[in-house]
Amino acid sequence: MNIEKYKIEEYNQQAKAKHVRKLESLVEDINNYHEVLEKLIDFQIAIPSWALGSGGTRFGRFPGGGEPRSLEEKIEDVGLLHALNQSSGAISLHIPWDVPKNYQSIKTLAAQYGLGFDAMNSNTFQDQPDQTFSYKFGSMQHVDAAVRKQAVQHNIEVIQHGIELGSKSLTVWLSDGSCFPGQLNFRKAFQRTLESLQEVYAALPADWKIFVEYKAFEPNFYSTTVGDWGQSLLYANKLGPKAYTLVDLGHHLPNANIEQIVSLLLMEGKLGGFHFNDSKYGDDDLTAGSIKPYQLFLIFNELIEGMDARKMNHATDLGWMIDASHNVKDPLEDLLQSVEAIMLAYAQALLVDRKALSAAQEDNDVAKAQEILQAAFRTDVRPLVAEARLRAGGALNPIELYRSLNVRGELIKERGSKTVATGL
Amino acid sequence: MNIEKYKIEEYNQQAKAKHVRKLESLVEDINNYHEVLEKLIDFQIAIPSWALGSGGTRFGRFPGGGEPRSLEEKIEDVGLLHALNQSSGAISLHIPWDVPKNYQSIKTLAAQYGLGFDAMNSNTFQDQPDQTFSYKFGSMQHVDAAVRKQAVQHNIEVIQHGIELGSKSLTVWLSDGSCFPGQLNFRKAFQRTLESLQEVYAALPADWKIFVEYKAFEPNFYSTTVGDWGQSLLYANKLGPKAYTLVDLGHHLPNANIEQIVSLLLMEGKLGGFHFNDSKYGDDDLTAGSIKPYQLFLIFNELIEGMDARKMNHATDLGWMIDASHNVKDPLEDLLQSVEAIMLAYAQALLVDRKALSAAQEDNDVAKAQEILQAAFRTDVRPLVAEARLRAGGALNPIELYRSLNVRGELIKERGSKTVATGL
Amino acid sequence: MNIEKYKIEEYNQQAKAKHVRKLESLVEDINNYHEVLEKLIDFQIAIPSWALGSGGTRFGRFPGGGEPRSLEEKIEDVGLLHALNQSSGAISLHIPWDVPKNYQSIKTLAAQYGLGFDAMNSNTFQDQPDQTFSYKFGSMQHVDAAVRKQAVQHNIEVIQHGIELGSKSLTVWLSDGSCFPGQLNFRKAFQRTLESLQEVYAALPADWKIFVEYKAFEPNFYSTTVGDWGQSLLYANKLGPKAYTLVDLGHHLPNANIEQIVSLLLMEGKLGGFHFNDSKYGDDDLTAGSIKPYQLFLIFNELIEGMDARKMNHATDLGWMIDASHNVKDPLEDLLQSVEAIMLAYAQALLVDRKALSAAQEDNDVAKAQEILQAAFRTDVRPLVAEARLRAGGALNPIELYRSLNVRGELIKERGSKTVATGL
Amino acid sequence: MNIEKYKIEEYNQQAKAKHVRKLESLVEDINNYHEVLEKLIDFQIAIPSWALGSGGTRFGRFPGGGEPRSLEEKIEDVGLLHALNQSSGAISLHIPWDVPKNYQSIKTLAAQYGLGFDAMNSNTFQDQPDQTFSYKFGSMQHVDAAVRKQAVQHNIEVIQHGIELGSKSLTVWLSDGSCFPGQLNFRKAFQRTLESLQEVYAALPADWKIFVEYKAFEPNFYSTTVGDWGQSLLYANKLGPKAYTLVDLGHHLPNANIEQIVSLLLMEGKLGGFHFNDSKYGDDDLTAGSIKPYQLFLIFNELIEGMDARKMNHATDLGWMIDASHNVKDPLEDLLQSVEAIMLAYAQALLVDRKALSAAQEDNDVAKAQEILQAAFRTDVRPLVAEARLRAGGALNPIELYRSLNVRGELIKERGSKTVATGL
Repeated sequence: MNIEKYKIEEYNQQAKAKHVRKLESLVEDINNYHEVLEKLIDFQIAIPSWALGSGGTRFGRFPGGGEPRSLEEKIEDVGLLHALNQSSGAISLHIPWDVPKNYQSIKTLAAQYGLGFDAMNSNTFQDQPDQTFSYKFGSMQHVDAAVRKQAVQHNIEVIQHGIELGSKSLTVWLSDGSCFPGQLNFRKAFQRTLESLQEVYAALPADWKIFVEYKAFEPNFYSTTVGDWGQSLLYANKLGPKAYTLVDLGHHLPNANIEQIVSLLLMEGKLGGFHFNDSKYGDDDLTAGSIKPYQLFLIFNELIEGMDARKMNHATDLGWMIDASHNVKDPLEDLLQSVEAIMLAYAQALLVDRKALSAAQEDNDVAKAQEILQAAFRTDVRPLVAEARLRAGGALNPIELYRSLNVRGELIKERGSKTVATGL
Repeated sequence: MNIEKYKIEEYNQQAKAKHVRKLESLVEDINNYHEVLEKLIDFQIAIPSWALGSGGTRFGRFPGGGEPRSLEEKIEDVGLLHALNQSSGAISLHIPWDVPKNYQSIKTLAAQYGLGFDAMNSNTFQDQPDQTFSYKFGSMQHVDAAVRKQAVQHNIEVIQHGIELGSKSLTVWLSDGSCFPGQLNFRKAFQRTLESLQEVYAALPADWKIFVEYKAFEPNFYSTTVGDWGQSLLYANKLGPKAYTLVDLGHHLPNANIEQIVSLLLMEGKLGGFHFNDSKYGDDDLTAGSIKPYQLFLIFNELIEGMDARKMNHATDLGWMIDASHNVKDPLEDLLQSVEAIMLAYAQALLVDRKALSAAQEDNDVAKAQEILQAAFRTDVRPLVAEARLRAGGALNPIELYRSLNVRGELIKERGSKTVATGL
Repeated sequence: MNIEKYKIEEYNQQAKAKHVRKLESLVEDINNYHEVLEKLIDFQIAIPSWALGSGGTRFGRFPGGGEPRSLEEKIEDVGLLHALNQSSGAISLHIPWDVPKNYQSIKTLAAQYGLGFDAMNSNTFQDQPDQTFSYKFGSMQHVDAAVRKQAVQHNIEVIQHGIELGSKSLTVWLSDGSCFPGQLNFRKAFQRTLESLQEVYAALPADWKIFVEYKAFEPNFYSTTVGDWGQSLLYANKLGPKAYTLVDLGHHLPNANIEQIVSLLLMEGKLGGFHFNDSKYGDDDLTAGSIKPYQLFLIFNELIEGMDARKMNHATDLGWMIDASHNVKDPLEDLLQSVEAIMLAYAQALLVDRKALSAAQEDNDVAKAQEILQAAFRTDVRPLVAEARLRAGGALNPIELYRSLNVRGELIKERGSKTVATGL
Repeated sequence: MNIEKYKIEEYNQQAKAKHVRKLESLVEDINNYHEVLEKLIDFQIAIPSWALGSGGTRFGRFPGGGEPRSLEEKIEDVGLLHALNQSSGAISLHIPWDVPKNYQSIKTLAAQYGLGFDAMNSNTFQDQPDQTFSYKFGSMQHVDAAVRKQAVQHNIEVIQHGIELGSKSLTVWLSDGSCFPGQLNFRKAFQRTLESLQEVYAALPADWKIFVEYKAFEPNFYSTTVGDWGQSLLYANKLGPKAYTLVDLGHHLPNANIEQIVSLLLMEGKLGGFHFNDSKYGDDDLTAGSIKPYQLFLIFNELIEGMDARKMNHATDLGWMIDASHNVKDPLEDLLQSVEAIMLAYAQALLVDRKALSAAQEDNDVAKAQEILQAAFRTDVRPLVAEARLRAGGALNPIELYRSLNVRGELIKERGSKTVATGL
């Protein structure tokens, strides 16, 4: 399915008057309006290929209809999102779920939708049917060198696929860890994992990055071998300049101050990328901004502060990706909501009066600092994000148009109501 | 110190043009504008007398200057807040910190500031110099009947004070519990506490309520004898129709869904009141809305839904109070920020399209339900709350005026820079 | 496979000398030795039919070999456990995974192994292939009466199966809840769930119990409609005298004091049963006693205290069951370890000097109370539990014998190495 | 007060028969008995000077009687503990609470009790009466260089005191952080703190260590500038070879795997010391081993594994200290219970069959690994620890003798019942 340009324009036309009124009222109070708009237009959030179907838990999965049945249809889905919001201009592939049969045709297809290929994702947390060794007791941490070698080899293959497609980074998420006290020698597990990662690192092209993702728990319930930002940073530092830490919002212990972690990783020059989602209890993988929108804003506040201090380009110098699971919503609607929430948080953070904030901090004026942050957060920036979308050719309200075009209905017609996308 | 009406009017005059512009743009999209405004004007949040000085932790306390030295000065402070925001029209007293020497003069003073007397608070978690028995091992739960009797008697005295002042409710927060396994027989502690509460209940006037506050931990670090809403509800049910549960936002285990608790307590007809504050880790007692503003909104969403379902009056049928600690901010600024955040959350929740939300729920349209809630939350309702304040005679931006009038400076001049208010 | 009596006796014979030496040294300090032994012999922990195969997470599952392929083989597995430890004398069935084709032959088979049928478990958290309505948005809470009816009907069928087999209770675990704010009206969800449960309750035979299990989160990640003990107790009270709360150790928010909950539920006469497992983060479903053995002991301490106060029979008046997931261990070994840990905790709790503890509590002698509890916990009661097992006809060290008999190897030979048991 | 040797011997004499019986039964199964005993005798845990009086919370403090009124009496108290358990052979001082007036006489006094001086502790989390600048907004992180300088200077003075007394290390615990989003620039706070620490580091004698303690929260409730092990390790690495991380068991987010942190810090050669206590919710500062004794054992398991791998001396190469608060128990009894729990955990960890454990790990034999750990933990090692104490000249059961000698009563007679020790 394809959303024709004219349909978006038609839709925007009828919604424009109200939009303009709201935008004008808002813009009157924004000094750096054009700069903010520019940045919003440039900002792109990659969509993971596995988030296009219904997710589930160990207790069950309730698939919806019209889910993509192939890599091509996954690209088509991201293309639909990008047509609507013009902020989802990349797809992040997962191997082995998305092994491309023909690189050129896949690249051509993506280009037709205006999509690039973001970080490649490897999988050593599941056993594939044709696999020699099991990852039941870990992959890169495994006591058996042959298993480790298999995991390393798999990652190198993922890099190969990525090179062909034009990706520039590899995200390694390891579920390695242990379920019970005594199961692992923590130190040896760390060192074996490090050695494995070093072999993968050696296979990275010169202009690639490797992202070492951490996670506090699940699927291992006693220890995780890349368990927190401190461990990830240890690996990244020992690996070398192409290695970075990747932060997934759901991968922390309760009450963790993620925005501080972000700031410190940027300080160390070791923040590589981000997985957006939201959660209340664990790695709940809910829609970004659906539970703690203020936290999302505070994280963007630190991202901007830290990236600006290092003169980094917001749009290109970090990897931005959604990593959510869609258990009870239409995945495409859920992704549109996530992207919207991320854009709103980014826009609000761009409105923070940084000079005034810095001055309040220097004065220990805590109440003022809070006023400044909350003034930005309380601003209704929806018109601003909509305007950026409008200028880029997207829809003023993507989810509204998605529904009025009955996209899901069309997809079910095309693909059937009993499809199940690969993924979790 | 007193803030003269004309100063507020002068201030509002110069800020009005911008306010009107923003309000008009906002109001265009609100159907029930006048009704919302009315409700915002009516809504009053009581200020606890102990929150007017600097708070601290076991590690230290850093007092600011100009803190109130007497009950009279505490009333004066709340009067200042109320003059500025017209939403703090009551004070909640704590005995023994605020024993009135002359009821009539205290009542007259409060009336001059337009203040009423909210719930009375008893204290059986500290030993007073003249006290016969120690509360080291609890008060109403104590193994020794004499200690329990002392605690009961104290509460009855608190009720007496309240009757004189025109209060209509007693809040009982018990720190009773245990620090170590084995210290307590949980069942007996519950039953002794219940018996003690029954004696207090028997002393309640016919038109009074008793609020049984619960708290998960601190100052006891193993168990608390009124530890969660389930326990509080057990007590309230066993006590009778005048007994209710009081919810303090900081008194839960990590990740608790407080809004669901609110909804169920309203369902049972047993929600009595609220202590507002915010927290990241425990009972941090931070400014309301400073950490999790979306949670605050969701709680108001349930409050409105549940109160409307029972045809309760928002302003008068529940006890609304701030309970925060001001460790690093000017307490009055902190309280202005808390009240503002509460009013904003209330205003946003009033904007929720309840019919549409109800329909989305009936359709299992989860994405739509989220859109509806977030549409209200993302609305910048600051002009709405400011307008309500303006109409009631308050300042368009209370904290800005507070600063421009140099209220703290004046208080320090009057009271000195080394005062320490009673409280925690 | 069957473990012949003589093999157990042979094994015990060679291990007996050491056992006797240790037992004698231990017994010298135990006053109520025979009484304790009696209680240990009587205590039986039911094994859930779904715990006999490898479990997994949403990220993957790594099956072992020789898993039971049918209800008959599940009974055989529990029979093996019971032959070894004589403490696993019941099986708890799950419908639809364990629908018996012929009640009589199943009952005869179970009787051959000395097994009874514990609580029946219904399943309205997954969609079955032949199911009319989906539980995607809940079952008993569902907005659609037809879905609720289907869920009620299923539970009534489960009761029918249970009656045929001689079970006396139904455990209802509902995954009902919501993933996002706004998705549910909490109050209506509660009331619909209550009405559904009332219909099930009406179908209970006179001598049956219904256990209402609660869980804080997962698979729903925003709210759960039976979310904590307070909610479960509300349902149980509204349902009537046959309804009870069931406590699963992994179903709480972080840091919850479960032993206090146990004590209060016993106080209210509403504790019905227990699901044993252990966890560090969430519902990790790890081996009982593998993470927090002291907590397990403290729970048994309250169970004994509270049951004795109500003159309840330890072995028969509550439902005792393991509910764990075996992701990285042989399920049968894992279950042997769980049962052993539970028996040890029970034994230690039986050794608590209750008179002295009660006296220390009355004296507020906190240090002494701790000494008393820890004296029991620090006692090495393994010989005691082994002796109980020996007298009942089990093996001195079940897991050691299990390994030396190569039970798993035999099961793989019989059943194959690629079997996958029904369950999570 | 002084406990004469002969009183201990008398007491031991009457308790010896039972002890010997139990010890003999235990020893029969221990291969490395003499080695274990040696290590237990050598192991010493420092007592902090501030733990000798009653602690409290922000809600109150309930002092007991006979608390030490001076540094001399604090040393006397630790001397009493050490006389009883022979495992508390050092005191850890806190400046400014324990400024020695005459170094030589203090050293002589300590020597009389067989005590050394462990790590010195500085205090920049409170304002002292004579202090020029306030630490309200931090100390080493402070935006004002003059405040930072004051904090640095204070630490250098603490080092001077320590040099005079023969201490060899400085523990720096900073409460620096923020209570609200926006209050701090995290990066600048880190960098200012690092610079301050570097100045302190420069003042360290060649044979000294500096321990950088981390803490997740409290007294700051939004961020802490040395907030977790990752941050502490960053500081320690940037400071140099004399800088180490110090782990306090209560300073983590909920559910943290502390034993893994310990293992990794040892791997990095950066674990410096330990503060023992226990907790259920936050930094509850409860008696070591009173809530999670298995966790304490698992930590010792990693300590031994990691120290042995680096050929470190258990007794001397790390700093061991209790850091607890005694709110409801006699502080000396509480400390005796803590030391006992630590010694038991250490003894159990020494019994772990490391060869077998390592083999099980290499085989991915998870059930076996758990059996090995739990076999050690389930062993009743009280006779072993008692025997070590006996040989070192201590009491078989210190707390029993403490009570029978009525030590607290004697102290109250000497010091009065209304004393309050300096400390929290």
